[in-house]
Amino acid sequence: MSNTLGVAVVGAGYWGPNLARNFQHSEHWRLEAICDLDLGRAQALASRVGSPRVTPSLDDVLADPAIDAIAVATPARTHYDIAMAAIAAGKNVLVEKPLADTAERGRAMVQAADAAGVTLMIDHTFCYTQAVLKTHDLIEAGELGEILYIDSVRINLGLVQPDVDVFWDLAPHDLSIMDFILPGGLAPLAVTATGADPLDTGRACVGYLSMNLPGGAVGHAHVNWLSPTKIRQFVVGGSRKTLVWDDLNPQQRISVYDRGVDLAAKTLEERTRVNVSYRIGDTWSPALKEREALTGMVEEFAAAIREGRRPRTDGDAGLRVLSVLEAARASLASGRAHVPELVGEPA
Amino acid sequence: MSNTLGVAVVGAGYWGPNLARNFQHSEHWRLEAICDLDLGRAQALASRVGSPRVTPSLDDVLADPAIDAIAVATPARTHYDIAMAAIAAGKNVLVEKPLADTAERGRAMVQAADAAGVTLMIDHTFCYTQAVLKTHDLIEAGELGEILYIDSVRINLGLVQPDVDVFWDLAPHDLSIMDFILPGGLAPLAVTATGADPLDTGRACVGYLSMNLPGGAVGHAHVNWLSPTKIRQFVVGGSRKTLVWDDLNPQQRISVYDRGVDLAAKTLEERTRVNVSYRIGDTWSPALKEREALTGMVEEFAAAIREGRRPRTDGDAGLRVLSVLEAARASLASGRAHVPELVGEPA
Amino acid sequence: MSNTLGVAVVGAGYWGPNLARNFQHSEHWRLEAICDLDLGRAQALASRVGSPRVTPSLDDVLADPAIDAIAVATPARTHYDIAMAAIAAGKNVLVEKPLADTAERGRAMVQAADAAGVTLMIDHTFCYTQAVLKTHDLIEAGELGEILYIDSVRINLGLVQPDVDVFWDLAPHDLSIMDFILPGGLAPLAVTATGADPLDTGRACVGYLSMNLPGGAVGHAHVNWLSPTKIRQFVVGGSRKTLVWDDLNPQQRISVYDRGVDLAAKTLEERTRVNVSYRIGDTWSPALKEREALTGMVEEFAAAIREGRRPRTDGDAGLRVLSVLEAARASLASGRAHVPELVGEPA
Amino acid sequence: MSNTLGVAVVGAGYWGPNLARNFQHSEHWRLEAICDLDLGRAQALASRVGSPRVTPSLDDVLADPAIDAIAVATPARTHYDIAMAAIAAGKNVLVEKPLADTAERGRAMVQAADAAGVTLMIDHTFCYTQAVLKTHDLIEAGELGEILYIDSVRINLGLVQPDVDVFWDLAPHDLSIMDFILPGGLAPLAVTATGADPLDTGRACVGYLSMNLPGGAVGHAHVNWLSPTKIRQFVVGGSRKTLVWDDLNPQQRISVYDRGVDLAAKTLEERTRVNVSYRIGDTWSPALKEREALTGMVEEFAAAIREGRRPRTDGDAGLRVLSVLEAARASLASGRAHVPELVGEPA
Repeated sequence: MSNTLGVAVVGAGYWGPNLARNFQHSEHWRLEAICDLDLGRAQALASRVGSPRVTPSLDDVLADPAIDAIAVATPARTHYDIAMAAIAAGKNVLVEKPLADTAERGRAMVQAADAAGVTLMIDHTFCYTQAVLKTHDLIEAGELGEILYIDSVRINLGLVQPDVDVFWDLAPHDLSIMDFILPGGLAPLAVTATGADPLDTGRACVGYLSMNLPGGAVGHAHVNWLSPTKIRQFVVGGSRKTLVWDDLNPQQRISVYDRGVDLAAKTLEERTRVNVSYRIGDTWSPALKEREALTGMVEEFAAAIREGRRPRTDGDAGLRVLSVLEAARASLASGRAHVPELVGEPA
Repeated sequence: MSNTLGVAVVGAGYWGPNLARNFQHSEHWRLEAICDLDLGRAQALASRVGSPRVTPSLDDVLADPAIDAIAVATPARTHYDIAMAAIAAGKNVLVEKPLADTAERGRAMVQAADAAGVTLMIDHTFCYTQAVLKTHDLIEAGELGEILYIDSVRINLGLVQPDVDVFWDLAPHDLSIMDFILPGGLAPLAVTATGADPLDTGRACVGYLSMNLPGGAVGHAHVNWLSPTKIRQFVVGGSRKTLVWDDLNPQQRISVYDRGVDLAAKTLEERTRVNVSYRIGDTWSPALKEREALTGMVEEFAAAIREGRRPRTDGDAGLRVLSVLEAARASLASGRAHVPELVGEPA
Repeated sequence: MSNTLGVAVVGAGYWGPNLARNFQHSEHWRLEAICDLDLGRAQALASRVGSPRVTPSLDDVLADPAIDAIAVATPARTHYDIAMAAIAAGKNVLVEKPLADTAERGRAMVQAADAAGVTLMIDHTFCYTQAVLKTHDLIEAGELGEILYIDSVRINLGLVQPDVDVFWDLAPHDLSIMDFILPGGLAPLAVTATGADPLDTGRACVGYLSMNLPGGAVGHAHVNWLSPTKIRQFVVGGSRKTLVWDDLNPQQRISVYDRGVDLAAKTLEERTRVNVSYRIGDTWSPALKEREALTGMVEEFAAAIREGRRPRTDGDAGLRVLSVLEAARASLASGRAHVPELVGEPA
Repeated sequence: MSNTLGVAVVGAGYWGPNLARNFQHSEHWRLEAICDLDLGRAQALASRVGSPRVTPSLDDVLADPAIDAIAVATPARTHYDIAMAAIAAGKNVLVEKPLADTAERGRAMVQAADAAGVTLMIDHTFCYTQAVLKTHDLIEAGELGEILYIDSVRINLGLVQPDVDVFWDLAPHDLSIMDFILPGGLAPLAVTATGADPLDTGRACVGYLSMNLPGGAVGHAHVNWLSPTKIRQFVVGGSRKTLVWDDLNPQQRISVYDRGVDLAAKTLEERTRVNVSYRIGDTWSPALKEREALTGMVEEFAAAIREGRRPRTDGDAGLRVLSVLEAARASLASGRAHVPELVGEPA
């Protein structure tokens, strides 16, 4: 008992059960409570995850000394109030994406957590998949060289969401991954979004998001609810090698291509004068362990609390993603590129 | 003899040999001459295509009464002068893409051809592939319903071109296809381009091009010289069905998906209130004939001349593509959406 | 209650839980008991499927008047004794594949069930997948024409089984599917098997099974535990069309090719004298419903009992598959083709 | 001139032009003559390959001292007479596959060439592709470990040949590759073939060929003229790694899987008692040069002649393939496994 941390899951809707199940099975955690205004829903969930107590009251949870942390899986507009109350009560907080409904509120959450000395973590689940962890490590080890472009395609036939457009529904995945693997995090100089609502649903159903990144690189995401074919492809083009992650190919999820444009011994002048040559090398596909992403995520949450350090996906990461989404919204409205508000020091 | 038309190919460089070979094998044409300032190159080509006469002089070609038409396969900046001279001499003209180096000059070419009563055709080769012809016919027959979005990806490891960026090198293919299949041609309300030159080559090597189309639809092209994997995928999302053309899958080049978001009997209000459902129907892949695109292209050139009608890819088509490329260049420079100059009545 | 049938699952090991779960969720069944000599295992299963009673005693189950049927998921060598006892007690019986450990015992089971007037069904699960049901229906409707060949590949990196070779482990799937879709069932004239045990494990790990079918057709299965790539491909070549089922391609599981060798208006003499031509037509991929195979299987078991008819996968089907496996074993031992013992009238 | 060898191509039909073109472009050869009874056909070919002289007379060719070698691209039944005459005249001989129409005649050709001290080479073209050369080298370097199984699938919609069945039409490719990469060449202990002629064409159109190889390994080829889908897949399963060659995937033709059943530190008894575990390692795809296979083949022919050594695909290689084809024919006829006649010492 003394070696575990106590946690309450707040929100027993779509994602809460996944969190609860992973906390229950983790050796680092004790799942103490399920909190939901809908007590029946809380009960139903509790019965499947070892029967922690259920309560409709957040205050009740926050007053419980056995609870070290809460995991917030409620609608985005409620994140701010819940997280601020928890921080004020000295609890560590894990928040579902997006961090908050506005960057301003998100920023206040980060500052409050820092001031209170508690851990604020964002559940960027994809960052804990084996594919993204491997991509991160390869980039950090310099295997790909300098990042030249990142291109993500995330399309399929999806339900048109009642409250958000396709950018806010799908792009947080792409942006959180880019933020995780880019050295220094995602800090675009400009964001340009174009979208289409050809069915007159009142929100973009097809979206393209371009980001000018420092150093002349570019990031791009194509998100689409109307595609009859499902594609999940994420390409990181580097100056040395290029990595392609095809999430629908379980037999070869990640491929690293030793191919690229060859600039060795070329001056800038030569590059613009003559054709740049290219080389075709081997392809390598690393074996990936089989491990559920959320298992690693809740483990990281515990480790960050115990070690008093920032988690790998901290509040700032959530804030950077939120800033890009806001800039995309502004770009959609204005028809021009927007500069995301600075987030402070990128991690 | 009296049933065939005489043609001279001007320019014996990269593309001229393909034109010459197809004119030579066509029952509609007599290949009369190869014209190139580099006589050795002209000679070498002539020896492989039935030994028509060779000449370095355009005037010589234009003075020859046996020559009904010229096919211009020279650099883009020379198209205007050559075409205008030919039109003045009463010759029909086929021009390689792009039509000219500026939309203004292209417009003058179209007007001159109209005034002179000669045929001006643009060699949008892809429009004569079986895949594009089939796509065109399916759209025209209403099989796909209303067009909602068009998404084209044309990426591979390509040589960085010395004189043009990746938009001018690759996007004409995507744009010419969109122009061909869209009822009324390609007439975007706004064009937004973002590009990246992460290798400091002096020109964009990765490019994204978004077009807001009439009726709320969107067109998008991703063109990229730096991708280690080759992708040629063109998706036409319709309100009834969606067509996917995968040019690298010869066993199933075109797939028509009877899948989509279902709006039957839904009012606008309902659509925004509730989730839109979707349906999963059969997939169908039409058999395509095996036929070289250029064979059909030179056949269409002959037919248009004889019937005194516009060819399927006429000067206006070339001009529309050119206008979008110019708008893309302006968008790249300004960081905002641009409206292409109107081309007059779309075909 | 009066509208449902009572069932006991005998055997709570690998497959029993799947049966129990499907009986529990079926509107046609009441899951009355779990029977396993290992009571702890029975208990653990029962707690997950609505807590039916548990018992280590088959006699106990067979004496229960609330139990109309038993589902036998125990090792193959025990099937005969359990099924014969159940039949003697007037119970309907569902047996896991293979029907028994010898064809002789299987034949006795079929005869006993017939004599007792109870239903004997074999759990050929794959036959209740949407892909196989659709294949069956297309063949029955004459869409493929006459069957010319069936080729099945079922390979991946699999655990070497301690008690059976790769034929007995994997080929029952292929054979049961062939039996289900072939008009008249699987009744080969000769069976030839070749296998390899290159790791000296004491049993074949790579196997090839050829069957000469009536009318000159051929069936073939490649089963392999040592393949690093996973392939599940099943081809039915017909005189009109050919169907390819790729179970690892969820986006296009079944493709029907309107391609084939064209024999129209050709006499036998002409065929042997000149090259046979072929035609390339469209490809069609029918949409398949999403439905778990076992759901349909337990439904069929209930329907067969109620209607007093043979189930779609009856004891004879199990017996035909068993006969081919025995012939394959004999062929492996002798190095020559074997004729399976006749099963009586194919269904 | 003194550095090149003179060659005549005998037979200007289907394959002769490919040989002639490659001899013409090789720096090691002078293409001296085209020999064909159909002089018009010979003429037409000569005009495309630098206009060597043409002749209908083999004697004429064999009497020419400028001719060091002949390349025989005539029907298989004529190989023996032509090759024997050429050997008698002291010429080196390249023969198209199959080496001869019977193994007996093939054996006589090998002996005659050895006795005369001239080079006899078989044109197993596939062995000179980059994919097969790389596979050979990886096996030779021990990268795959001991060969456990080889599985080749070569199927598509093909024309039914008037004179040979699908085994003699397609399997020589698979067998020649196996012969090339297997240390010691292809020397099966037994050959089992099953075929089907469901269209009553008078010859097998679907064929399966199994070979028991020394050491418990197995080789298998599936050849099929009736498949609507084209597959060219060649798998070499080794005790250390497994290689998959997918000839229709130009982006990743060869993949080497570091996956397999793990037998480390396992005794035979343990293997049969417990499940063998397996490991999943990385996948690696070597880059392959772009080079036409025939270019390397004619180079090897020249090198073997000059160095007075056996070519990589010598007469014995052709003889081993021929022996397997004969054993397959016998197996088809008898319905049982056949042992190919020994070829003498495998290379």
